[in-house]
Amino acid sequence: MKIGILGYGNVGKGVCEIIEKNFDDIEIVHICDQSVDISLDKRFTQDNNVLLNGIDVLLEMIVNEEPAHTIIMNALNSGIHVITSNKATVAKYLDEFIETANKNNVQFKFEASVGGGIPWIQSLIKAKRIDKITSCKGILNGTTNYILDKMNKNHLSFNDCLADAQKLGYAEANPTADIDGYDVQRKIMISSAIAFSGIVPYKEFDRLSLANIQLEDIEYFNNKEFTIKYVGSSFIKNKSVYGSVEPVLFNNNHIFTKVDKNNNIVELVGDTIGTLSFVGQGAGRYPTANAMIQDLLDIKNGCNDNLAFENKIEMNKDDIMFEYIICSSQLSLNQDVFVSVENYKGRNIALTKPMTPQARNELMSMLKELDQYIFCIRKED
Amino acid sequence: MKIGILGYGNVGKGVCEIIEKNFDDIEIVHICDQSVDISLDKRFTQDNNVLLNGIDVLLEMIVNEEPAHTIIMNALNSGIHVITSNKATVAKYLDEFIETANKNNVQFKFEASVGGGIPWIQSLIKAKRIDKITSCKGILNGTTNYILDKMNKNHLSFNDCLADAQKLGYAEANPTADIDGYDVQRKIMISSAIAFSGIVPYKEFDRLSLANIQLEDIEYFNNKEFTIKYVGSSFIKNKSVYGSVEPVLFNNNHIFTKVDKNNNIVELVGDTIGTLSFVGQGAGRYPTANAMIQDLLDIKNGCNDNLAFENKIEMNKDDIMFEYIICSSQLSLNQDVFVSVENYKGRNIALTKPMTPQARNELMSMLKELDQYIFCIRKED
Repeated sequence: MKIGILGYGNVGKGVCEIIEKNFDDIEIVHICDQSVDISLDKRFTQDNNVLLNGIDVLLEMIVNEEPAHTIIMNALNSGIHVITSNKATVAKYLDEFIETANKNNVQFKFEASVGGGIPWIQSLIKAKRIDKITSCKGILNGTTNYILDKMNKNHLSFNDCLADAQKLGYAEANPTADIDGYDVQRKIMISSAIAFSGIVPYKEFDRLSLANIQLEDIEYFNNKEFTIKYVGSSFIKNKSVYGSVEPVLFNNNHIFTKVDKNNNIVELVGDTIGTLSFVGQGAGRYPTANAMIQDLLDIKNGCNDNLAFENKIEMNKDDIMFEYIICSSQLSLNQDVFVSVENYKGRNIALTKPMTPQARNELMSMLKELDQYIFCIRKED
Repeated sequence: MKIGILGYGNVGKGVCEIIEKNFDDIEIVHICDQSVDISLDKRFTQDNNVLLNGIDVLLEMIVNEEPAHTIIMNALNSGIHVITSNKATVAKYLDEFIETANKNNVQFKFEASVGGGIPWIQSLIKAKRIDKITSCKGILNGTTNYILDKMNKNHLSFNDCLADAQKLGYAEANPTADIDGYDVQRKIMISSAIAFSGIVPYKEFDRLSLANIQLEDIEYFNNKEFTIKYVGSSFIKNKSVYGSVEPVLFNNNHIFTKVDKNNNIVELVGDTIGTLSFVGQGAGRYPTANAMIQDLLDIKNGCNDNLAFENKIEMNKDDIMFEYIICSSQLSLNQDVFVSVENYKGRNIALTKPMTPQARNELMSMLKELDQYIFCIRKED
């Protein structure tokens, strides 16, 4: 089996290392990256066309939608299987990729794009062979989980923990994708597409940022034996999905509260299997490389996923209500939408009546004018 | 695809129900059970030879080593794939079954024999394609987990909780297999065989009973934010395995302590994947039936596991030490093997120095003469 590597960064190097150590029958033919010195290794190239010459499988590990999308489409249309860890391009073009792969009788696989080393995509696909999946939910971003866990255990501020995560290489210099939820938004969109056999554009997934969380918010709930986690979730009701990424409040007996450091957890609920959960490393060189190679071995063994997104699914915006908790330093929270308001170290913690996400957005916009550090949490059912 | 069902009990009925509801292309040809009234359904038979006529796959869901072993061997030697949930026969004859299946170019699959609906065996086999597995560990018995969780949360005695588990159908009238650890002993043996590619007879796995646990033991540790769970574990060190089933003490921050009711958790540690954990329903009609059918669909899709047990592995008995906690109503625990002894409501709780399992056995035998209700827990590293 001859493969081409696109992206020779952290994960790409891990993939090459594992393959060279363990698999004599897999030949790395080309390694394409704009930053490689092509004089160092005859497999190195900076030319995307050379990359696709004479390979059976492309392993794509770059980060943006383009040029990944174009190169993947070229590969699939040339009869080359594609494996990717690139959630940005998967979230945007999943149906096009699958359709093109099916048309060309090759496979498009993306285990590494959600949950890193956790065999989540594969498990979801397998569960769906038998069950109707009704929901999926997870802590899908290691960076924000690391920050929340560290704030909770070490009583440090968000900014201190973010700086620490950056120092450890968990968080990017620009951490927006992680802490504003764009990363999880894509991951839960991809999971939903498989779970419910239908595409809802990732931008339609409800999204609340984690950025305004204060140590006081964490402490207040910690004293009551509750923990805030940053969660992607999605469930189907009739033909509409409600999917979101948001801070969620869990009782400390909930298993999600024990997922520490930069670990991930993700679970599905099916009609015969019940709740099935997976915990592991959601990022990192070796776990992500492992997921890429698992996909490669499945292709090598001729196992076909037969994915299709035939269901027409809409995002549910109205027919759904949650209780939210709003944290703000402003005291003017005495509105009739609140069931209770408590003050903790200068921070008001208010529980709302059940409301639609749309109504919550309107409330948040209004309150944000009074306090730019307002923070909203969904209460776990 | 034509299949035969052996054992029309709880799981067998679940398998038939799911197949009839979802899979038009799978035909149930024979249903063999000594208790069926053959006049009710033309597929019913009490004849094990009729069962194997004209089928591609045998699904075996009876409980003892025999006649399951004989029927499975007949099937494999007749070129019939076999899927089983029967851990007793798998634990005893795994290498013979795999060897015979390989020789006859058919598959022997046993996902449902460990962890019920959790895709554990499959995940272990897949992880091993890339990684060296160094350990596996889990809460693998739903009955004892239900009892421990109920004692802990409702402050009830072991016997009350056992009676409750029996009323709910979780525990057998004779609960020895569950509470003395014979069930988990087989499950961890099967997991170890795959993880380390070598067979160690299940009887060699160290085993401590849960039967003598007192509510006071649970309360004492609960007050210190620790929880006792009944755990099967196994790890490899050089060419020897240490595998056991025993009560283990975990800090309440450990994820195992949040696996409640009759749920199971099981985890593996691999060199590139790190720690990967799976949580779900370890028993029950539909989860177990789901696991059987997952195996069936893998056979249908032509995915082959290529199992082999080529490593010669011995059970490690001497080159290993743990700290244990011994709980007893006797006060004469002031021996130099103990680091500390505390009394709680008439129960002495003693922490030992690190000792080998063999030394622990000798100590327990000696102390048991003084107090038949002595209870031993391993301290999690």
